[in-house]
Amino acid sequence: MGTSVANEATPSNGSAPLPVGVLGARGKVGSEVCAAVAGADDLALVAEVDQGDELDLLVSSGARVVVDFTHPDVVMDSLEFCIDHGIHAVVGTTGFDEERLATLRGWLDKSPGTGVLIAPNFSIGAILMMRFAAVAAPFYESVEVVELHHPDKADAPSGTARRTAELIAAARRDAGAPPIPDATSTSLDGARGADVDGIRVHGLRIRGLVAHQEVVLGGLGETLTIRHDSLDRVSFTPGVLTGVRRIGEFPGLTVGLEHFLDLD
Amino acid sequence: MGTSVANEATPSNGSAPLPVGVLGARGKVGSEVCAAVAGADDLALVAEVDQGDELDLLVSSGARVVVDFTHPDVVMDSLEFCIDHGIHAVVGTTGFDEERLATLRGWLDKSPGTGVLIAPNFSIGAILMMRFAAVAAPFYESVEVVELHHPDKADAPSGTARRTAELIAAARRDAGAPPIPDATSTSLDGARGADVDGIRVHGLRIRGLVAHQEVVLGGLGETLTIRHDSLDRVSFTPGVLTGVRRIGEFPGLTVGLEHFLDLD
Amino acid sequence: MGTSVANEATPSNGSAPLPVGVLGARGKVGSEVCAAVAGADDLALVAEVDQGDELDLLVSSGARVVVDFTHPDVVMDSLEFCIDHGIHAVVGTTGFDEERLATLRGWLDKSPGTGVLIAPNFSIGAILMMRFAAVAAPFYESVEVVELHHPDKADAPSGTARRTAELIAAARRDAGAPPIPDATSTSLDGARGADVDGIRVHGLRIRGLVAHQEVVLGGLGETLTIRHDSLDRVSFTPGVLTGVRRIGEFPGLTVGLEHFLDLD
Amino acid sequence: MGTSVANEATPSNGSAPLPVGVLGARGKVGSEVCAAVAGADDLALVAEVDQGDELDLLVSSGARVVVDFTHPDVVMDSLEFCIDHGIHAVVGTTGFDEERLATLRGWLDKSPGTGVLIAPNFSIGAILMMRFAAVAAPFYESVEVVELHHPDKADAPSGTARRTAELIAAARRDAGAPPIPDATSTSLDGARGADVDGIRVHGLRIRGLVAHQEVVLGGLGETLTIRHDSLDRVSFTPGVLTGVRRIGEFPGLTVGLEHFLDLD
Repeated sequence: MGTSVANEATPSNGSAPLPVGVLGARGKVGSEVCAAVAGADDLALVAEVDQGDELDLLVSSGARVVVDFTHPDVVMDSLEFCIDHGIHAVVGTTGFDEERLATLRGWLDKSPGTGVLIAPNFSIGAILMMRFAAVAAPFYESVEVVELHHPDKADAPSGTARRTAELIAAARRDAGAPPIPDATSTSLDGARGADVDGIRVHGLRIRGLVAHQEVVLGGLGETLTIRHDSLDRVSFTPGVLTGVRRIGEFPGLTVGLEHFLDLD
Repeated sequence: MGTSVANEATPSNGSAPLPVGVLGARGKVGSEVCAAVAGADDLALVAEVDQGDELDLLVSSGARVVVDFTHPDVVMDSLEFCIDHGIHAVVGTTGFDEERLATLRGWLDKSPGTGVLIAPNFSIGAILMMRFAAVAAPFYESVEVVELHHPDKADAPSGTARRTAELIAAARRDAGAPPIPDATSTSLDGARGADVDGIRVHGLRIRGLVAHQEVVLGGLGETLTIRHDSLDRVSFTPGVLTGVRRIGEFPGLTVGLEHFLDLD
Repeated sequence: MGTSVANEATPSNGSAPLPVGVLGARGKVGSEVCAAVAGADDLALVAEVDQGDELDLLVSSGARVVVDFTHPDVVMDSLEFCIDHGIHAVVGTTGFDEERLATLRGWLDKSPGTGVLIAPNFSIGAILMMRFAAVAAPFYESVEVVELHHPDKADAPSGTARRTAELIAAARRDAGAPPIPDATSTSLDGARGADVDGIRVHGLRIRGLVAHQEVVLGGLGETLTIRHDSLDRVSFTPGVLTGVRRIGEFPGLTVGLEHFLDLD
Repeated sequence: MGTSVANEATPSNGSAPLPVGVLGARGKVGSEVCAAVAGADDLALVAEVDQGDELDLLVSSGARVVVDFTHPDVVMDSLEFCIDHGIHAVVGTTGFDEERLATLRGWLDKSPGTGVLIAPNFSIGAILMMRFAAVAAPFYESVEVVELHHPDKADAPSGTARRTAELIAAARRDAGAPPIPDATSTSLDGARGADVDGIRVHGLRIRGLVAHQEVVLGGLGETLTIRHDSLDRVSFTPGVLTGVRRIGEFPGLTVGLEHFLDLD
């Protein structure tokens, strides 16, 4: 417990704002990041870098932290440059496999004090939902996941729903929880949802929705429901700002924003 | 619009209470019906009949209306007796096919003024949910049904969920609504639920729940959700009492309590 | 039942598109209306009029229907012009009191066949929610309204929540429903919400939300919940298009989009 | 993380069942506890004690743990007896002030190895809801509490809702979170709920409901909702059994079941 992302709007405490650079600054996500950094009293947007710009801008502008929402093809070069120059990096770009993570660790070993955060999901709400679901799951006989998205989405269930189900299943295994009861003997195909590690997952596709998920847990005479509604794409920015503010405390490689949220 | 089931608890308006008999009075459902009739100021419980009792009790007690929650094997004999004696019947017993309904109509033709209500569902909430879902469905691009029940239930989806989906599909067909959009191209088996007449239906089985259903409709920038929660089996009794109070206004055969609710 | 707003996206049925003009075309709402009209196969956007433009554009462009989201100061002049020229009008501009409505009726008497729709709310979901709440209210002992909005909203409860409560109260009065039970004897100020015509209304203000409302009804052992979520301001456009498509069938003055939805 | 109350239904692991006595065994709550203990494979119900019975029964029956749902007038005598005899106690009886807790600590000092759990709330769902709300609160700009109960409840808001609001307020204070935004300038009395430590709390009273609570948190573009539904009074029994199973690991005095749930 302890950190508050809510305090981003408070007047600065007198110390100088933290200089931040953004890679992929003209992209859809990057431009939102720029706006969020510019709007935070305790941060200063000192460099907006995109294709065709020189990475040296990050050094000359004095950036202490870089946010990278770019492309798997270019992200490793950018990170090598940042780590070499002792600039922390908060990375939302995808495509990090074990090999890439090992390479990053190697570079970071040579630049002690520098931190890199690789996060597949910057939504604090999604992270809390997954966490709470995993904590609660062993206490209940039943648990299922329902995700609801706009009908233009190509995959079902969503990646977040799959990940949630996997975390729930792991938590139940660790606690020695018995199988989830289900007396269904007559069923239409698909009525009971998809099976992800023994957890039932249901996907709705409804026009007007953005990205929503509900975890329903139940035991004798009671249920607990944890629901996350993402109504606007900007919902990832508070998580990015939390990453920017705290990366200095976490030298080396961190995978997953949850490690910055002091949930343990 | 107009009827109020809520007024069951109001002091009677001075007229004598309506004498009511109950068939299957010692069964689980029948005993709840007896308690509800006995507790209503405007009704009098005059006969409690079960296996081994004489139907003549209904006549000698002066019952004007009979409630029947018994068994398909015996219900036709009971109804013939009631119709012969001009006693109205409110029937929750199952197993009525077209042949049985035709037989009832034949008997009722010879007893003008007598009414029989056959209802598969006495939950006013379930009836309103189905009705509202069908009314709203043509106004929205997307609609799906989610039902949630205790894990001892044998069938999925529930009969009410199937019926709701059929009514929604029919309403959309009548209105010339286009197919529901769904760009899903990669899916785990079952993730998108069961297909009932083109409407996706999802069934959750969660300990602690009783019987719940949600219809989610969505269009450009907005959603409408209609949810029915049945938390206790006694939720069918207000519907039965509505049937008892109004059957006198509906001579002949009526199938479905919705016809007594003045929804049109 | 019968209309389907969902079919706006279907290919036109061969008849020529309906020519539509928009007044206030460069305003925030007006420009959304222009985009929606332009995007509908069965409608043609023939005139975009704003401050400084001539109303004659409506005539020369051949507009059969005009949509007006402008200002109380100018709307009466615009409507007089439209009615004089036999152009139907769908009006979202506010400020219509009884005197203005009487004036409109006078003008329309002299232009038989022309229709004007004045609607305070074009959200079909909000209209259905209010309607369903009023239909269901007499069947339940208890009913309360919860509205949830972003924290920049100045008034509480919302106008829609007040209107919903008034409609519920009226429906219960008409049905002779008894007062709503409430045994609260010890209460913190405000805990039980505001009282609107005897109906409790609660307002939440939560960052991240847009405009949401829930009506919760309950009786013996069951509850019915009707929820409307408006996630994007464009949610009013399907209602405007329904108004445009159907105004030709409703000569004279109509107040309220619900009259075009065939709900009775 | 780690414990699982769900495993109460698993076959015993070969060790002898834990002998349990119940004080207040013929009361409404006590008889539910007896049934739950009797139904658990790893527990043995060895003594059912109520008014008029001798406490010596607990000793002669070999009870290792006692569950006490009795009355403030008699509970201290019972606990002195249990502690004297080295029998652990799980206590749901109310009325423990600081003085009583100090007395218990004194007795326990003289009986090392004996544990007493005093818990105001045995609902695991309610405990998790409060916990998750407090963990999440500092991450969000806005948070409000809605509780929903049957209309026969005398107080509003509920004790659990007040406690939840206090925990949320404390968590926000500790994290230095700024005040919750609220631009309301025109309001009907009560529309914005009650103020508990700066947190808005709303209470609904709806027939058909039992005991329900929802915590709604929101930030930029997203909301997180944690809802607990208690549908049946037996929902407290899994918490009592968890207390019984784990009290042996917690010698001395523990206040609050949350300390047995390994949430930290």
